[in-house]
Amino acid sequence: MASEEKPLVVVTCTAPVNIAVIKYWGKRDEDLVLPINSSLSVTLHQDQLKTTTTAAISKDFTEDRIWLNGREEDVGQPRLQACLREIRRLARKRRSTGDEDPPPLSLSYKVHIASVNNFPTAAGLASSAAGYACLAYALARVYGVDSDLSEVARRGSGSACRSLYGGFVEWQMGERADGKDSVARQVAPESHWPELRVLILVVSADRKLMGSTAGMRTSVETSPLLRFRAEAVVPGRMAEMTHCVRERDFQGFGRLTMKDSNQFHATCLDTFPPISYLSDISRRIVRLVHCFNAHHGQTKVAYTFDAGPNAVVFTLDDTVPEFVAAVRHCFPPESNGDKFLKGLPVRPASLSDELRAALDVDPTPGGVKYIIATQVGPGPQTLDDPHAHLLGPDGLPKPAA
Amino acid sequence: MASEEKPLVVVTCTAPVNIAVIKYWGKRDEDLVLPINSSLSVTLHQDQLKTTTTAAISKDFTEDRIWLNGREEDVGQPRLQACLREIRRLARKRRSTGDEDPPPLSLSYKVHIASVNNFPTAAGLASSAAGYACLAYALARVYGVDSDLSEVARRGSGSACRSLYGGFVEWQMGERADGKDSVARQVAPESHWPELRVLILVVSADRKLMGSTAGMRTSVETSPLLRFRAEAVVPGRMAEMTHCVRERDFQGFGRLTMKDSNQFHATCLDTFPPISYLSDISRRIVRLVHCFNAHHGQTKVAYTFDAGPNAVVFTLDDTVPEFVAAVRHCFPPESNGDKFLKGLPVRPASLSDELRAALDVDPTPGGVKYIIATQVGPGPQTLDDPHAHLLGPDGLPKPAA
Repeated sequence: MASEEKPLVVVTCTAPVNIAVIKYWGKRDEDLVLPINSSLSVTLHQDQLKTTTTAAISKDFTEDRIWLNGREEDVGQPRLQACLREIRRLARKRRSTGDEDPPPLSLSYKVHIASVNNFPTAAGLASSAAGYACLAYALARVYGVDSDLSEVARRGSGSACRSLYGGFVEWQMGERADGKDSVARQVAPESHWPELRVLILVVSADRKLMGSTAGMRTSVETSPLLRFRAEAVVPGRMAEMTHCVRERDFQGFGRLTMKDSNQFHATCLDTFPPISYLSDISRRIVRLVHCFNAHHGQTKVAYTFDAGPNAVVFTLDDTVPEFVAAVRHCFPPESNGDKFLKGLPVRPASLSDELRAALDVDPTPGGVKYIIATQVGPGPQTLDDPHAHLLGPDGLPKPAA
Repeated sequence: MASEEKPLVVVTCTAPVNIAVIKYWGKRDEDLVLPINSSLSVTLHQDQLKTTTTAAISKDFTEDRIWLNGREEDVGQPRLQACLREIRRLARKRRSTGDEDPPPLSLSYKVHIASVNNFPTAAGLASSAAGYACLAYALARVYGVDSDLSEVARRGSGSACRSLYGGFVEWQMGERADGKDSVARQVAPESHWPELRVLILVVSADRKLMGSTAGMRTSVETSPLLRFRAEAVVPGRMAEMTHCVRERDFQGFGRLTMKDSNQFHATCLDTFPPISYLSDISRRIVRLVHCFNAHHGQTKVAYTFDAGPNAVVFTLDDTVPEFVAAVRHCFPPESNGDKFLKGLPVRPASLSDELRAALDVDPTPGGVKYIIATQVGPGPQTLDDPHAHLLGPDGLPKPAA
């Protein structure tokens, strides 16, 4: 390491979005971002959805700075500061254990950070998990930290710790008051279940939704059902979901995914004042999925919804064409020049008359704006190509190409 | 009683609709209609909403028959049969206790029943409670039964037992396996809280909703949250609600009413497949109520929703004009010649600019079809005027006037 000699040390990483199938909702410690229950997620492939973050340190930088999607943001926001503090603490700790040279000057260097998403923020896809995972990963590389990054990512956004791994990931809630055992672990790698597909049905939101931080705080304070869920329901569901993933049992995986999404939204409704993230379109998608499964006599597709109206649908590769045709039938795309189907290619399929009749859903033109077809993917990556850097040799964002 | 001598004994009664503020959802015994938790309701005034039922017995009738809103229905349906069986059992029991003459022939007489509602069934207002309470009450009169009618009404429709009393009524779940202690009791009479007003916001439903019998069965079978609610949440809420009613504490009454409605719908969402009774319009009404209360810095109005999208709003008389103006603002009435405001007169009021700004709801023209303004009312009544009878001297429905 010769960071002392270089004018600029720069690293660029990417990190994935993850979708929880056992939901995280509610903190037992707001400062340390410790959850009231464990959760389990699927890491989505970065070919479709990813955050790219460049971190650069230099003795010439006079202050920490950050640019998100090209716009400079306030570096003083508490979550970001918590991440920076934590990574520098880990770096100091590592250097002081004696298996290294004395702490290089780089520890005192200020950092410049630039981060972009390859998907529109307007789509309402939770980007904070990918964003803080990528930040933690990039900061670790640039400051030379190789310990567990769960805490760094978690302090930015709880679910970000699940984006530190590919495949299927659990965030163990832990028991300790200091949160040291509240960490993410891989349950199965991305290669484990190659047939699994993920369809993101992007729905137009007609209004600003309550942010998840404020939402979960209100839920913890007011929902009697949430506490019961966390204590009495989730532990059994974590074990069951882990088993379904390991066995690649789609029926069990799908049913439990839907039940847990519904229960999370039930606790939002039990919050006072109540929180509604699902729209009428979301509910039509729910009905479509249940009609589709009823027609087939088995769970062939499964929905889950986070803190917004977009549906994330799990299915197996051989079911994708027919289900996409069913979505097109129920939500006829509005011809606006945009592509309705993004991501992985999906071969066209037509609906059988029987399935069409079974879809007891009034067609809602434009209800689904577009679909992103993707699959399970790997964890964060480091990009070696210097062209990938978002910051130039001067440590400032490169002009957008 | 000289029923043996008369060719026809005929009685006409009316009974009210009730709205639960602590909700009943889930049976522990399907046959006996025994609930998994106690519930508490407000009886609405019959000037606005009532069922009228005529029961007639005659030795000349060859079979039991029933007409609902002028159309003959199948008298063999199990709930109706359970009511008839139960009332005849009570009649026999009473006569056999010896404080009467030997059982008159009327016990073996067949009955003709005619029933009408003074509100459109299409409005989606739960009519089965008023209907079965009225049936139980009329049958008791015609067969000379004066014992507690909770069981007769309950066997028709659980919540019907709460329509047997005016004012504020609790249905005690009871503990006995035979259901003898699962009865309705008045908590406070209709004169107890004269300022209380009830506004029914009738919303258009775009599809057939799942019936409450099937819905609660599925909830009991699949929702982990419902059992917890019944066992751990409702007992405390029953005590709290009773206290709020007795003290005429609108703040406490209103908040708990809203929380319990939300929790009921939360358990519907936790059901698998999930049940959604609330529509986007319902949710806009929820938001309107919370905005209205936030603007005033106190709970001035409170919503509750049953198994459908219509809102029932509680408030005090001095708040009615301003809240109705707020509803008009958020749901501009469509000019279709129908009256937007039915029932009790409401004096016009205008919205202050501050309140208008505080109502963070996109106006939805026609979202609320109309409002029925009503108040707390008395229990079932017997009509003395023979003109009120729905059945003629021949025991058949009179032609509609």
